[in-house]
Amino acid sequence: MRLVTYRANVSTAARLGAIVDDLVVDLQRLGAHAGQAIPDDILAFIDLGPHAVATTTALLAKHKGGWPLDTSLPLANVRLLAPIPRPRKNLFGIGLNYVEHVAESSRTLDTSSDLPKQPVIFSKPPTTVIGPGDAIEHNGAITQQLDWEVELAVVMGRRARRVGEAQAMEHVFGYTVVNDISARDNRRAGQWIYSKGQDTYAPMGPVIVTADEIADPHDLNLGLKVNGVEKQNSNTRHLLFKIPALIADISAGITLEPGDVIATGTPSGVGAGRTPQEWLWPGDVVEAWVEHIGTLRNPVVAV
Amino acid sequence: MRLVTYRANVSTAARLGAIVDDLVVDLQRLGAHAGQAIPDDILAFIDLGPHAVATTTALLAKHKGGWPLDTSLPLANVRLLAPIPRPRKNLFGIGLNYVEHVAESSRTLDTSSDLPKQPVIFSKPPTTVIGPGDAIEHNGAITQQLDWEVELAVVMGRRARRVGEAQAMEHVFGYTVVNDISARDNRRAGQWIYSKGQDTYAPMGPVIVTADEIADPHDLNLGLKVNGVEKQNSNTRHLLFKIPALIADISAGITLEPGDVIATGTPSGVGAGRTPQEWLWPGDVVEAWVEHIGTLRNPVVAV
Repeated sequence: MRLVTYRANVSTAARLGAIVDDLVVDLQRLGAHAGQAIPDDILAFIDLGPHAVATTTALLAKHKGGWPLDTSLPLANVRLLAPIPRPRKNLFGIGLNYVEHVAESSRTLDTSSDLPKQPVIFSKPPTTVIGPGDAIEHNGAITQQLDWEVELAVVMGRRARRVGEAQAMEHVFGYTVVNDISARDNRRAGQWIYSKGQDTYAPMGPVIVTADEIADPHDLNLGLKVNGVEKQNSNTRHLLFKIPALIADISAGITLEPGDVIATGTPSGVGAGRTPQEWLWPGDVVEAWVEHIGTLRNPVVAV
Repeated sequence: MRLVTYRANVSTAARLGAIVDDLVVDLQRLGAHAGQAIPDDILAFIDLGPHAVATTTALLAKHKGGWPLDTSLPLANVRLLAPIPRPRKNLFGIGLNYVEHVAESSRTLDTSSDLPKQPVIFSKPPTTVIGPGDAIEHNGAITQQLDWEVELAVVMGRRARRVGEAQAMEHVFGYTVVNDISARDNRRAGQWIYSKGQDTYAPMGPVIVTADEIADPHDLNLGLKVNGVEKQNSNTRHLLFKIPALIADISAGITLEPGDVIATGTPSGVGAGRTPQEWLWPGDVVEAWVEHIGTLRNPVVAV
């Protein structure tokens, strides 16, 4: 399934939907027609576990093309929010997880040129999350070095505490795109949370694709454009620490919970690594995409 | 008020109470007697704003000594949880915020001996939080350098986005104690979240004292004992970045929300800074205290 959180219009509450062709199907309403209690909230849905995914997938297949009248809307008529508009905890980000990005970072930032021996973990508060089309805030009083980073993001489906690599993928609910925005000039004594943790610095979406529909998360093209010009283009096969390693490593000390998000790191081509360096400015439009998931498009605005 | 989250016994839900003398007064139940709808959850209570604090304080004063039968329990008979058992986002921690701690850290850790020019902000996931008496986990497979840090923690009362220092204190709900536990050997490429973000690494409590009852949060003695032996003893007057500066600085980029917690930093005397270095081991008991708030006592257990 391609799950979204959507609003039918500005005055209605956010609801859980699935994209089928050019429609958004409201899952709670479709469930009501079939006598199935499906939540109207993505986190509540994830909490139900894999059985809910299978049941709902079957329900969509059964009704496809014959949607009850109140269950579907044209995708073009709704507003998509971040698929998880308000995560329950900080997002986890992984720094320096593509070889070429390690190299470009060491040339221009304060990081080492050695490949990390363990995942470099940082966090982004839930207040960083925005959805497709939402504005990335450019606060010129704070930063003159706003940068982009397209990333494949993993959405956890089950509580994971000390999960080994062999069992790690069973804990994955699905995948989405996160653009890990950074103010490069806002790092402090090496800590990245201020640089990466400001409001609007985690555009997410447009959808969560459930894990059953991604054959190999380690073979997905991904890239990013600024104002239509390609800046990043790589493939998740180049991840230094693969998803099972990340889940095993984080969950060795930090319990991962349903709906938690791990942004797996960015390939080369960020603004800080370019010659000359390039930054985001008000008026720019950033498009981050991952194969089979979609394109996340956000304008940059002055605040 | 001295607010707590408590359970009357293991099978009942967590509820909001106020400590009056040697009793826990259940605020929702006391409110019901007076026709006042007081929530049974600390975050819902904080959301109500300053008016709820004033009203509830008056209600307690009015009934003091004549508690309706179902509204109070002996403090000795209840279990206290962390006053905010599950924060809505990561806790914010401030590193290197006491002069002598900057010096001791630079001698034995990888930090600079220069005083920071801006607050050094890091985060602890909500899954780090435990309450009074709960076990700090010592995972010998991951760390041999488990350390303590007593801190005055600020609980936000109002949403703060770009709040100036002059208005910052109006956004404070109250104060509690956080023991900012770290696995010193778990820092990675300088990022502290793994070192400071593991499960059980944020003992919090025993109470939140509302801001109206703390005359000057920048003149509070605080300290920490391990197995009864004093390791830290200082006063919040030595904070490098005071609370208004911290709120102004964080909220310049990151929206602070009601119930958010800022641990303001630790004075000297941590295990890493001692000669020879000292660490926490299973069987140890740590007591972190802040004047007018109380003592937070936690055992260390092997996991």
